[in-house]
Amino acid sequence: MGRRTAPPPISWLMQTALSRPKLISLAAGFTDNATLPVEISRRMLNRVLRSPQTGRPALQYGITAGETNLRRLTARHLQKLDLGGTPCRRPKYQGRQPAILPTHSPDRVMITGGSQQLLYMTLEALCDEGDMVLVEDPTYFVFLSILQSRGLRARGVRLERDGLDLMHLETVLQRLKKSGELRRVKALYLISYFHNPTGVTTSFEKKRGVLKLLKQFERAAGHPIYLLEDAAYRELCFSKGGDASPRRPRSSRRDDPAMVLEKSALMVPGAAERVIYTGTYSKPYAPGVRVGFGLLPEPLFTSVQRIKGNHDFGTANLLQQLLANALETGLYDRHVAKIEKRYGQKARVMRQALAEHFPPNVEIWEPGGGLYFWARLPKNVPTGVKSKVFQTALKNDVLYVPGELCYADDPARKKPDHEMRISFGSASEENIRKGIKRLGAVLRKTLG
Amino acid sequence: MGRRTAPPPISWLMQTALSRPKLISLAAGFTDNATLPVEISRRMLNRVLRSPQTGRPALQYGITAGETNLRRLTARHLQKLDLGGTPCRRPKYQGRQPAILPTHSPDRVMITGGSQQLLYMTLEALCDEGDMVLVEDPTYFVFLSILQSRGLRARGVRLERDGLDLMHLETVLQRLKKSGELRRVKALYLISYFHNPTGVTTSFEKKRGVLKLLKQFERAAGHPIYLLEDAAYRELCFSKGGDASPRRPRSSRRDDPAMVLEKSALMVPGAAERVIYTGTYSKPYAPGVRVGFGLLPEPLFTSVQRIKGNHDFGTANLLQQLLANALETGLYDRHVAKIEKRYGQKARVMRQALAEHFPPNVEIWEPGGGLYFWARLPKNVPTGVKSKVFQTALKNDVLYVPGELCYADDPARKKPDHEMRISFGSASEENIRKGIKRLGAVLRKTLG
Repeated sequence: MGRRTAPPPISWLMQTALSRPKLISLAAGFTDNATLPVEISRRMLNRVLRSPQTGRPALQYGITAGETNLRRLTARHLQKLDLGGTPCRRPKYQGRQPAILPTHSPDRVMITGGSQQLLYMTLEALCDEGDMVLVEDPTYFVFLSILQSRGLRARGVRLERDGLDLMHLETVLQRLKKSGELRRVKALYLISYFHNPTGVTTSFEKKRGVLKLLKQFERAAGHPIYLLEDAAYRELCFSKGGDASPRRPRSSRRDDPAMVLEKSALMVPGAAERVIYTGTYSKPYAPGVRVGFGLLPEPLFTSVQRIKGNHDFGTANLLQQLLANALETGLYDRHVAKIEKRYGQKARVMRQALAEHFPPNVEIWEPGGGLYFWARLPKNVPTGVKSKVFQTALKNDVLYVPGELCYADDPARKKPDHEMRISFGSASEENIRKGIKRLGAVLRKTLG
Repeated sequence: MGRRTAPPPISWLMQTALSRPKLISLAAGFTDNATLPVEISRRMLNRVLRSPQTGRPALQYGITAGETNLRRLTARHLQKLDLGGTPCRRPKYQGRQPAILPTHSPDRVMITGGSQQLLYMTLEALCDEGDMVLVEDPTYFVFLSILQSRGLRARGVRLERDGLDLMHLETVLQRLKKSGELRRVKALYLISYFHNPTGVTTSFEKKRGVLKLLKQFERAAGHPIYLLEDAAYRELCFSKGGDASPRRPRSSRRDDPAMVLEKSALMVPGAAERVIYTGTYSKPYAPGVRVGFGLLPEPLFTSVQRIKGNHDFGTANLLQQLLANALETGLYDRHVAKIEKRYGQKARVMRQALAEHFPPNVEIWEPGGGLYFWARLPKNVPTGVKSKVFQTALKNDVLYVPGELCYADDPARKKPDHEMRISFGSASEENIRKGIKRLGAVLRKTLG
């Protein structure tokens, strides 16, 4: 038997949710059911399949790297986000479009089965067993699961309210250099927009700083160290800058309206050869239309393309054409504008409920987008699946993701276990209120 | 940089095809464009997306192993093929359906992005670097490419006109036992219906024999040796038994009408715990709706499910619901009956053209289904990409797949290089005639 992939913690949580019908899940990273674009998808598919001429290419094999038109539209779309400056104020397709930057060339775009598949294949292309990837501390737990299953190691880099702690990154790199492990470090994984699980956005200046530091250590590493920028939540953006004011004091940068204006790391001059950018249409459009994408420099693009050929020859053409049509008609942009509003409203509901029901000694990190609030209890109050908090919450029919699941196994620190990820993605407004009320009661009781 | 995946030979062939607009490709394994179910897909998608109630689940995340309804329908469908006895004479959904056999339980069904993804993940779950997989000699070249990219070794087992050579399989197993390599052998990969590239179908009796032999060597191996049955072409079946008579003498079994009646290896009593069965809706329905499936025994099912979670959380729900509706309404079966006719007709055209234009000292293997004829030149006439035959064919604007690409690197024999795979899948009847005529002229000239 080959490598054993550990059971994903989230599947246990999901099973738990299914076995208790009255349970309110604030755990799932699902998107809002009511916002799913049923009507748009039907229209777009009728457009694609209106005739044999248009329909047949959508039902045939395609190109491994993705459908040419969708790659072109994806390049344009991403450039629009990067040049327009804000995912929240998206420019319309009007007048002449600027020429595509070399960094955003369609030739660098790969279409995949969600950005998840691209993360997986990138690690396949980049890493040998025993290699190391730096991650935010905490980070996306499925990414940790991929690392585990492939025999890769992770090292955590501290996360601040405005993104990665650059000084800590330098310390970690120095330490790895001293221990001789730097030659095993292949990449830094950064969830740059509305981070999972904390909601934090890393500023463009910090991305520039990260790239500079990684470059600095490349000579000692003996090979490139890539910045793997995961922008999965970039388009789930609702804060127009400071309009959702925090209930807890937070860092000055966090209140900066510029927070939502961040460009991708691809825009750091001269750095695109070290940036792997992954994005997705799955979260902002529909998870059931599982299409993601990435921009990769050579020789990684070619490696990942070959791996993609071995996985599945390329993502289903029908889904690609559906999205190409949604992008081309502008209905995609209209849809995203709609869900931004919806998530903004749900985040406000959750913020109000948290203010009302959570004890004051719980620190809340409020996001400007994405799907998650991050709650930090006093350090001596554990939140893990075996903890009193989690078990009492479960008994009271409310579920969250324990923070400890989001931390890598890192010998350099004890795993924090006093936090929780609380999602407003899939629960209704009523259930958000109820769920937070239940969770608040559990916390008030536990914290005394 | 992690493992280097070699460039797939087929991508070179495809590029070549694109650069010569007049070229007739008899190389591609594409399905027939004119048979693609544009109208059925449109109807089914309108059904799925007719209302928010039906549409939202199709656009949301689903279950990693696949949509419950599609898993159930797939189990039924496969059982129908196995109990009905023939993919060519498919029983109708009429009256009471028999209860599902434990071997065909929906719980054992996994839905994937084509059966290709299942092959990939099965090897991930089953094999460590340096492990060995037995393959038919020749075999599917993308499977060889996966093995190469994952650092796995292959050993070829001779293929006869009626399937795997059991005596040679025993010899290979004995030899590996003696050399101490048997403990690295994890599976035998068998393309059991209308084999790629040769068109050969392996009889049920032979499958029984294979399983018996593998079982016999398990003690010496120290672990299970699985039969990985790839049934991708099972439903592209057009021979009703002997109606497409061969133009060359062939084995008596080959003329047996029973050839098309073969059951899957799942039906070998007591053997299902050693059979991994992979099938697909991609070839018989539409490659652009990339949905495949597999039946796996534990503990493999659980391993592959976790790997699938890390790859992409599960195949796009929208595609799964499209297929579930096509199966449920019976339109899938109607479509397959239609394409069987079409491929039967194209195979007849190719057979006639081969009889007319190919020199008599070229041995032709004619299939009862699938997409490929197999042509064997005299042993001293190479057909590889650098050969005179290939280069002259290219100059005359006709392309085939050189046989040598389909042979594993196996130290036990020299790689045969005098064969060609000729596909009638995507070319029109006119182009099949023209292409074979061109190729025949090249061969007559080369063979003198």
